[in-house]
Amino acid sequence: MRVEIWSDIACPWCYIGKARFEKGLAAFAHRDDVEVVHRSFELDPNRAKGDTAPVLEMLATKYGRTLDEARAMEAHVASNAHSEGLGYRTEGRDHGNTFDIHRLLHLAKERGRQSELLDLAYRANFAEERSVFEPGTLVALAVEAGLDEAEVRAVLADESAYADAVRADEREAAELGANGVPFFVLDRKYGVSGGQPAEVFTQALEQAWQGRTLQPVGGDADACDVDGGTC
Amino acid sequence: MRVEIWSDIACPWCYIGKARFEKGLAAFAHRDDVEVVHRSFELDPNRAKGDTAPVLEMLATKYGRTLDEARAMEAHVASNAHSEGLGYRTEGRDHGNTFDIHRLLHLAKERGRQSELLDLAYRANFAEERSVFEPGTLVALAVEAGLDEAEVRAVLADESAYADAVRADEREAAELGANGVPFFVLDRKYGVSGGQPAEVFTQALEQAWQGRTLQPVGGDADACDVDGGTC
Repeated sequence: MRVEIWSDIACPWCYIGKARFEKGLAAFAHRDDVEVVHRSFELDPNRAKGDTAPVLEMLATKYGRTLDEARAMEAHVASNAHSEGLGYRTEGRDHGNTFDIHRLLHLAKERGRQSELLDLAYRANFAEERSVFEPGTLVALAVEAGLDEAEVRAVLADESAYADAVRADEREAAELGANGVPFFVLDRKYGVSGGQPAEVFTQALEQAWQGRTLQPVGGDADACDVDGGTC
Repeated sequence: MRVEIWSDIACPWCYIGKARFEKGLAAFAHRDDVEVVHRSFELDPNRAKGDTAPVLEMLATKYGRTLDEARAMEAHVASNAHSEGLGYRTEGRDHGNTFDIHRLLHLAKERGRQSELLDLAYRANFAEERSVFEPGTLVALAVEAGLDEAEVRAVLADESAYADAVRADEREAAELGANGVPFFVLDRKYGVSGGQPAEVFTQALEQAWQGRTLQPVGGDADACDVDGGTC
């Protein structure tokens, strides 16, 4: 079975939802038969690269709130993160364009290190004093995740590298009806939106597992069977 | 959209079915949004490694036919291959255990060279005078496909390397109800068995494309939206 998770590194509910999904997955009997794939989604695709803003100010501006109201919003998110055992700093965190991180996550996917880089990037952004909007931090995180430094630098320097892969993920999210993240898709049959409780993920996994029957298309055709046939 | 193809290198209808699928895919409007993944299936998993037999003799023994009848069966397959523009030699080809090839195809998948190795292995087995049951040929094919020779040799030398990945594919095939190959699965919703005409694949792709709507699981939950929300 396969679960695709559309998310953005700048999205706190993706960070929290990932932990809840993992808890739900751990409670699922067939967890060893589940493949998890990260898909790209940008919350702020039109923000220029390098144009960062402190999160509290961004929230206040975006939603017309005071800084104190923004701080309360962040405190609510933080308490949810803490309940999942996740670190979360509500002050001093920046918001920005995440296109380069998604490009690196696609490189990491090809190298079998996507899950490692994803966890490091979330932790850097939400729990540590490291800005994922600085190229130097991105290189350090990617190397920590096990990628080759020269290759990482080459991808960051070439803005077209893995750009199509990011755009393809985003197009697919739109086609599947997602306009927010995290967005979980199970075997392309079931969709789960948002940072749901772990039990909802377990239930969705069980439902998808039951629903694995295929609808046949086409009639009889030549094939090689294990027992008999002509091959 | 995603198409998984279970097949075996030793399966002539997989070789032919792949060409027909590719023709069907080329006629599908959304072909650029289709990801194709090879999955492992062994026609003769209990045959010992290194125990090879000439195909005609194997067919005669397996089905209790004369060598001439086996030759006629192979001629039928060959004419189907030729109709697809594929080379096919009916004499001098061996049958054997394909576990090592499948292990290498999983290594190739991780390195982004699976499609290249698959095509080379099929061609070697069916159209050329090269035995895919000889380790030396496997190394040569893998290097031709763009893999690193030392890494390929290390995988062949370690019988546990990618063995779980092959077994997982085979378990999934059984769970999905496949007992023969080629077996095509579209978005884990639609199944196509055997070397169907190209038009059947185009039709299945169109049907799967129409049926991409997701069934939602779970109620409202915190999420980050592109327009509005609290992130």
